[in-house]
Amino acid sequence: MTRKELIEQIRAKKTFLCVGLDPDTEKIPKQFLDDEEDPIYEFNKRIIDATAPYCVSFKPNTAFYEAYGLNGLNSLEKTIKYIKLNYPKHFLIADAKRGDIGNTSTMYARAFFKRLNADAITVAPYMGADSVKPFLQFDGKWAIVLGLTSNEGSSDFQQMMVLGKPLYNYVIETCAKWGNEDNMMFVVGATKAKMLEDIRKIVPEHFLLIPGVGAQGGSLQEVCKYGLTKDIGLLVNSSRGIIYASSGEDFAERAAEEAKKIANEMKALL
Amino acid sequence: MTRKELIEQIRAKKTFLCVGLDPDTEKIPKQFLDDEEDPIYEFNKRIIDATAPYCVSFKPNTAFYEAYGLNGLNSLEKTIKYIKLNYPKHFLIADAKRGDIGNTSTMYARAFFKRLNADAITVAPYMGADSVKPFLQFDGKWAIVLGLTSNEGSSDFQQMMVLGKPLYNYVIETCAKWGNEDNMMFVVGATKAKMLEDIRKIVPEHFLLIPGVGAQGGSLQEVCKYGLTKDIGLLVNSSRGIIYASSGEDFAERAAEEAKKIANEMKALL
Repeated sequence: MTRKELIEQIRAKKTFLCVGLDPDTEKIPKQFLDDEEDPIYEFNKRIIDATAPYCVSFKPNTAFYEAYGLNGLNSLEKTIKYIKLNYPKHFLIADAKRGDIGNTSTMYARAFFKRLNADAITVAPYMGADSVKPFLQFDGKWAIVLGLTSNEGSSDFQQMMVLGKPLYNYVIETCAKWGNEDNMMFVVGATKAKMLEDIRKIVPEHFLLIPGVGAQGGSLQEVCKYGLTKDIGLLVNSSRGIIYASSGEDFAERAAEEAKKIANEMKALL
Repeated sequence: MTRKELIEQIRAKKTFLCVGLDPDTEKIPKQFLDDEEDPIYEFNKRIIDATAPYCVSFKPNTAFYEAYGLNGLNSLEKTIKYIKLNYPKHFLIADAKRGDIGNTSTMYARAFFKRLNADAITVAPYMGADSVKPFLQFDGKWAIVLGLTSNEGSSDFQQMMVLGKPLYNYVIETCAKWGNEDNMMFVVGATKAKMLEDIRKIVPEHFLLIPGVGAQGGSLQEVCKYGLTKDIGLLVNSSRGIIYASSGEDFAERAAEEAKKIANEMKALL
């Protein structure tokens, strides 16, 4: 998906919400688990149908599928196919946080862009240029590089000072040179919204994928205050806050309500 | 597998070679590809049987399986089962370079330690403590954290100065506090053997996984000079140099020869 197409979708729907598809069998309604042959896929389908009107993007995190072995990975493939078939205008992010030496990153890029047909993949930057660049060689596909993450551990390395600036700023600045606004985004945790101000000075035009709103405590208002651009430039993700809004039979309806609530907030902020 | 068991194996066999299982259908002998139903698995089996006497560890890199979708992941599962059944004393490393926020890293840890039954997984440190610690909660299982990698891109971030030392030293020093010599190792590229001297000052006892010998140009002598400890403390990996020693029908025999050659060098150096 191109940058232009993504922006058009956001403008048309007045939402820049991304719904994280992190299915956990310990949180999926029990009866649903017993009844369905592929409960992860069926759970996702229900969530996708319920929330699609309120979001422009879906983001399955691969860990939640790998944990269930081949069955889980089959559910992931089916989920992606379902989205591509029924919601082709939604931006599909494989949250895989991959990154390896050049020839190996190329294998990952093929896996996610060619095999799975994801629009984007999240990429861990620690191994440098040759680990990131292979993800930039596919038309209409995106590398979303980890800049500043939303977890506690982000202070361990990302916030250490390198050449007079925090490592995450140095990473964003450096990686931005390897790609452009049409094939690269950055992950910036919502729990550190004020740091967005500095990041926007480095990458004024790039899209940022913002996790950490909702369950992790980030504020949408703050994120918009510091992160919005003339082309919006934001995808704000919520996973647990939406998909586990209810642990009962009404999980899809409650997920829709939560997504709608955030989408309405976004509409007001745009 | 415990540290004691690993050291015993190394001492008994007088080799600390790890064979990287990175099957690439573009490099597997053509005729072999046509004849076999699961050529990746069959290729691996032949390589494993041929090289097992000369190594103490196998390391499949997950990228080379994910690239072939569910079939590839099935080949990976079968490969790991084959090793566990036939070579239970070989240390099995899933080279996956995973790492995510706490609850998500826990899902990866379950996937690799419980489902796949790997002894170890390589871990990307960028996201900090809560991304690494979940891999340290399993008895006899190991997190092998990326310290200094063997690729060109390692200079982009890993070698930047943080608090007066290169980031990779700071990463190793910090991560070492989260685990111990019995559940944590570090990846240190062989192409930077002299840097091992400084790393050994930080982690004098930890095992180091050394990629980059062979195809990537690292020297075994140099690695041993700076990296060997009284308990050996090294696993030296070679992937392409061994498994693609020949692109013909004799690939397994040639792989065995290459592995034996390295093992003999190791024997002389111990």
